[in-house]
Amino acid sequence: MSKRLAKRVLRRFLGSAAQGRPPAPEYWGLSRTAAGDVSLDGVTLRQLAQEWGSPLHIVNARRLRENAGRFLAVPAGRRAGCEVYYSYKTNPIAGVLQELHALGVGAEVISHYELWLALQLGVPPERIVFNGPGKSDASIRQAIDAQIQLLNVNHREEIARVGRIAGELGRRPRIGIRITVGQGWAGQFGVPVAGGLALQAYEEALRVASLDVVGLHAHRGGMIRSRDDLTAFVLAVLSFVDELHRRTGRSLQVLDFGGSLATPTVRGLSTRELRLNRALQRELEPADPARALGIDEYVSVLTGLVEDFYDRRRWPRPRIVVEPGRAITGDAQMLLTSVLTVKSEPARTFLVLDAGINLAESCRSEYHALLPVTDAKRPGGGVYTVVGPICTPGDTLYWAARLPSLNAWDSLLIMDAGAYFVPFATSFSFPQPPIVMVDGEKVTLLRRGERFEDLAQRDLAAAKAAGAGTTPGADR
Amino acid sequence: MSKRLAKRVLRRFLGSAAQGRPPAPEYWGLSRTAAGDVSLDGVTLRQLAQEWGSPLHIVNARRLRENAGRFLAVPAGRRAGCEVYYSYKTNPIAGVLQELHALGVGAEVISHYELWLALQLGVPPERIVFNGPGKSDASIRQAIDAQIQLLNVNHREEIARVGRIAGELGRRPRIGIRITVGQGWAGQFGVPVAGGLALQAYEEALRVASLDVVGLHAHRGGMIRSRDDLTAFVLAVLSFVDELHRRTGRSLQVLDFGGSLATPTVRGLSTRELRLNRALQRELEPADPARALGIDEYVSVLTGLVEDFYDRRRWPRPRIVVEPGRAITGDAQMLLTSVLTVKSEPARTFLVLDAGINLAESCRSEYHALLPVTDAKRPGGGVYTVVGPICTPGDTLYWAARLPSLNAWDSLLIMDAGAYFVPFATSFSFPQPPIVMVDGEKVTLLRRGERFEDLAQRDLAAAKAAGAGTTPGADR
Repeated sequence: MSKRLAKRVLRRFLGSAAQGRPPAPEYWGLSRTAAGDVSLDGVTLRQLAQEWGSPLHIVNARRLRENAGRFLAVPAGRRAGCEVYYSYKTNPIAGVLQELHALGVGAEVISHYELWLALQLGVPPERIVFNGPGKSDASIRQAIDAQIQLLNVNHREEIARVGRIAGELGRRPRIGIRITVGQGWAGQFGVPVAGGLALQAYEEALRVASLDVVGLHAHRGGMIRSRDDLTAFVLAVLSFVDELHRRTGRSLQVLDFGGSLATPTVRGLSTRELRLNRALQRELEPADPARALGIDEYVSVLTGLVEDFYDRRRWPRPRIVVEPGRAITGDAQMLLTSVLTVKSEPARTFLVLDAGINLAESCRSEYHALLPVTDAKRPGGGVYTVVGPICTPGDTLYWAARLPSLNAWDSLLIMDAGAYFVPFATSFSFPQPPIVMVDGEKVTLLRRGERFEDLAQRDLAAAKAAGAGTTPGADR
Repeated sequence: MSKRLAKRVLRRFLGSAAQGRPPAPEYWGLSRTAAGDVSLDGVTLRQLAQEWGSPLHIVNARRLRENAGRFLAVPAGRRAGCEVYYSYKTNPIAGVLQELHALGVGAEVISHYELWLALQLGVPPERIVFNGPGKSDASIRQAIDAQIQLLNVNHREEIARVGRIAGELGRRPRIGIRITVGQGWAGQFGVPVAGGLALQAYEEALRVASLDVVGLHAHRGGMIRSRDDLTAFVLAVLSFVDELHRRTGRSLQVLDFGGSLATPTVRGLSTRELRLNRALQRELEPADPARALGIDEYVSVLTGLVEDFYDRRRWPRPRIVVEPGRAITGDAQMLLTSVLTVKSEPARTFLVLDAGINLAESCRSEYHALLPVTDAKRPGGGVYTVVGPICTPGDTLYWAARLPSLNAWDSLLIMDAGAYFVPFATSFSFPQPPIVMVDGEKVTLLRRGERFEDLAQRDLAAAKAAGAGTTPGADR
């Protein structure tokens, strides 16, 4: 009893209500009809749920094109902009990728499958960049053979390997080397500039005749949310470019700055926040898009820093490559989900949704706005704990979310579902949902939902093959 | 520099090497051939990797049957044992489930898909138990219509719902109510005994004419690793059974104690351990199977406590239901994976594997032994950081694992991969691997690996349907 009281006091002291509010639905291109329905480009979400069921991924084509267009634009006063390669792993939906490719966005791939998919979708090889710490020999071979734009070597040991395969194929692929500059990710990624390791890697690669060393790759990782984050990172990379020139006489033609620009309405959650949120049901502070670095400014700052740097040295302007993921698709997609049941207890009310960590794993470590589709003016409501249908306490999406009164069948939108929701999705006990795209009043199915048969299909195929006396090897 | 020194001192102080060693490969039924190869029932893992590729899930049929047999056995001196329902969500591979069903194990399902799968595999409805916090109306309807053994109501609000659907169907399903006793999971699961809530739920359910209230469900959650854990939990549940009898005159016919018995060689990792492991590369202490509660003892203690309790009250012995998951399949499966590349740095060496959190998410929060398949006598080696091929620092499976010297193409086994590896798997950038079962010298394919085409299939089908002018709705 005293424990409960202590919690109550603590909750008041620490502030149980978040100070900020999430942006209005209009931020995402949504509007509320006179009847109280939420709609996207004139299509109500009620209609979508009726036609396609719940859960449902909804892609906002207009926002997708806007975001891509801002990356592709040449900033005022600059000779050129960036070359944009969308990070396939972020949201690998063929229909979304095709929409981006039609605008001139290329493909940034990290696996043999993604390379295959890009070629399958008709992306010209010169619009493909291949990255990643774990490239198979077969994937390196295909990338070189197809003559893609740029193959970024992840670490020193990969230089000889790529060189050997290139030699075997009689090709001379255009390569970059991934470096780390003491900001953002390191570990398994890239060769550190510190200790002269990146420089040594370049010197080694330059000695391999079968490699055309044209570029540099530096992906910061995490989320770039401010001009300062970006500037510090770009200047550190350029400082290495300078050093490389001093030591080897080379000025690189291609500078690939990777991705990491944040979705303005999403932010990572700290361990402390998560602890308070879980233990005391303290609401999470929304991410404030007004304080986030926008795409226009990102492109402008990046091209400005690089152009000025090369101009001062009278070097020819390099090609500037970026590999955005989150910043293009993050806020151009939402996950519609519905309440299966409400579980009321004296201390807490749970909403059990038809989507959980199987579809929205990111909610465990990132802030994602949760918008009720139901008329917000319904009386009642309060702070709910919002969980999914998976049988583990880990399937909690929101430990404390303030919502209007909701009942079974009511729908909600988990916002900014266009980055890492789809690729991290599992078929844990429940089939994965369809994905539709809304474009004006046109609704297109981009991916049909999984059927029960799909989930068992590879097992039943194996059993059938075994039963028919086929050798299992034939099924691979 | 001083930071690095501090780390070195700390590392020595805290002990960089784990005290225990994982069990010998023989624990899992593996042996080393004269040539230094690791083999399972006479099949070398080298052969399996050659035939089926890497990564590869390998089911040990003998261990699977042994574990199930121990759950099904009647303990010495007892009139009967337990009725065993395997937790489908733990490892939903049709071939594994069929192997268990052939022995007399039933199906514990938590979703419409799992219910469908059990019926599809020919499990008689009276061998099916349906649980979970998020049951759809359609799934409840099918469960009632099929006349399954037991439908466990998760929370108070579900009583009226199940009652209503039963009424509509003109059936009277056998139900239990899930309770929580202040040990293990609560939250979205079950009705708390505290505050008289569980009692109220029973009183309410007993008033619904369309419900046949026969049982009780209590799933502790987490991992039961000791006799004390089990005893405390069972006594708490029995104490509620007593109270229920006093208040309603009912002694329940079916007591369902859920699952949660640990895999002896797996244990959950604490936040502190994980922090030391990540920051200081302190090796993890293996789980000691000798100190874990075994299946025989679990069954013996459980049936003993329940029988004695009912005997003392001169009530007819109830049916005792258990729903093991981990304890049956956990140590009967292993994930074969291979080194794609080694990344050496002055401070740390990384092994990049072809399996990461896409296939072995559990390694982030549980101890799983890592066995080199390669000849262990190879000189050199040391402490490696073992990562997967996914482009995120989160894709680290082992922050510090002591291994012999390993090179690209060498294989490793991630042990105890039979619980929550397959259901939590994603197709993040890489297709999911095949699953084979080794039974004596016979190797059977249980699930064929995903092909690139599989990953794009639902997108391309949608695009084709849209192109052909088919209404998208037809594809659902």
